[in-house]
Amino acid sequence: MATSASAFVPGHVTGFFSAHPNDDPTKAGSRGAGVTVSEGVTVRLEAGNGLELNGEPAEIESVDRVLGALRATARVVVETDLPLGAGFGVSGAAALGTALVINDVFDRELSENELVTIAHGAEVQAGTGLGDVVAQARGGVPIRLEPGAPAHGAMDGIPARGTVEYVSFGELNTEAIISGETTMLTAAGQRALSALVEEPTVETLMENSRRFAREAELLTPRVQEVIEDVSAAGGEAAMAMLGETVFSVGTGLSDAGYDAEQCEICLTGAHLQ
Amino acid sequence: MATSASAFVPGHVTGFFSAHPNDDPTKAGSRGAGVTVSEGVTVRLEAGNGLELNGEPAEIESVDRVLGALRATARVVVETDLPLGAGFGVSGAAALGTALVINDVFDRELSENELVTIAHGAEVQAGTGLGDVVAQARGGVPIRLEPGAPAHGAMDGIPARGTVEYVSFGELNTEAIISGETTMLTAAGQRALSALVEEPTVETLMENSRRFAREAELLTPRVQEVIEDVSAAGGEAAMAMLGETVFSVGTGLSDAGYDAEQCEICLTGAHLQ
Repeated sequence: MATSASAFVPGHVTGFFSAHPNDDPTKAGSRGAGVTVSEGVTVRLEAGNGLELNGEPAEIESVDRVLGALRATARVVVETDLPLGAGFGVSGAAALGTALVINDVFDRELSENELVTIAHGAEVQAGTGLGDVVAQARGGVPIRLEPGAPAHGAMDGIPARGTVEYVSFGELNTEAIISGETTMLTAAGQRALSALVEEPTVETLMENSRRFAREAELLTPRVQEVIEDVSAAGGEAAMAMLGETVFSVGTGLSDAGYDAEQCEICLTGAHLQ
Repeated sequence: MATSASAFVPGHVTGFFSAHPNDDPTKAGSRGAGVTVSEGVTVRLEAGNGLELNGEPAEIESVDRVLGALRATARVVVETDLPLGAGFGVSGAAALGTALVINDVFDRELSENELVTIAHGAEVQAGTGLGDVVAQARGGVPIRLEPGAPAHGAMDGIPARGTVEYVSFGELNTEAIISGETTMLTAAGQRALSALVEEPTVETLMENSRRFAREAELLTPRVQEVIEDVSAAGGEAAMAMLGETVFSVGTGLSDAGYDAEQCEICLTGAHLQ
């Protein structure tokens, strides 16, 4: 087995979304919008089996499902500087990166859409995400117009570049939220998407992401306080869906005095490297 | 007027295509496949009007049409190291880059799909290209599954990275070929696309691009000789549609002793920078 291939998949922070479950995991997904970031996940393979995440043994169900779908056995080595469970789509990125490197190393001869479909379906079935994979495949500032894998979904993007900052206070349980009662959340997400499609700018994204977090009642007190501090300093911040994480486009967080991680809007989608 | 914005749009070499004219320029386009390259076109604006290409006054009809569609007046400054008229989609790239910078500088608040649609329509109406703009917007190794701007077209990609080389002997008249009799060309292009969708690899792309150029009778003697030399040296080369240009994925051209330009498969689509 060749072991030279490695894949990079950007992190993706969702600002708002609506959940669209479906029995067919390639049709299930989310509408919404967010930002891909230049910090991401790298995936490479070694002989053996099992998964290693930042040097430690770990389990990521979406990765196991990708290996199963591609009928491949390998040790999957995942590395990331992104915080885990904090709304950056690390599980989706690991799944998509695994699909890319397995395809390359095992000569599976699948197209990018096919690999995205496998990773998206794996993530949906694992219950760990609905829209990160298609966004991470694209890069930039993705708008998910229609839910699902490439054959069913539809994407657009906000033409923007620049700095993204974030501070993270820890995890929220994505699976509990997206498998629970999502009526209010979905109504709020649809309103936000309508507003963003009307005016696809970063300012509209951030403003509607803040409104969404309030309306969907996902805002934690700590996150709310940071967002208000950034607004008071003249910046734009919002809550990452789903994590106890605040992100700003531009230097809003550091301008407000926070010790924020700094990266850039990612110009590339997921790719072999 | 702010003058800081600039856009980068990768060059795009088509290996094979079929032409799909339509009275609606957003539905007109091509099916086919090719490679985007890390050498491309940068576009910035200055106060005034007119167009400058590599420091000289020039006319690019697709750029004029973009300015008209966006109701903007500016001096458009286009720079590229790519050869002109040689199959790298410089006119499409200039149109798409212009759409991106005008949107940014004049606060037009349009989405990426909307800007791609404007640039694609401008390129189709100018008669200078059918599929470069949507490929350049995407980056990578794009497959155009369905013709047209984002609302109508459909894209996939070959997951690949690596070196691309090219040698160019000059221009072919794109407008004369794509506005002429295209029945044989389109049949050959459809066969090539079917083969590539079946097996979406770089090898299949290159092999079917060579076959397409033969079947569509677009191969010039000089191009044919170079392709044969690369094959003899164990490499993969094909003809750029439409230019008297040979491109290889990997170092096929330099391995065969040619003094080729070298770049990389472009990991990013068109973007502000």
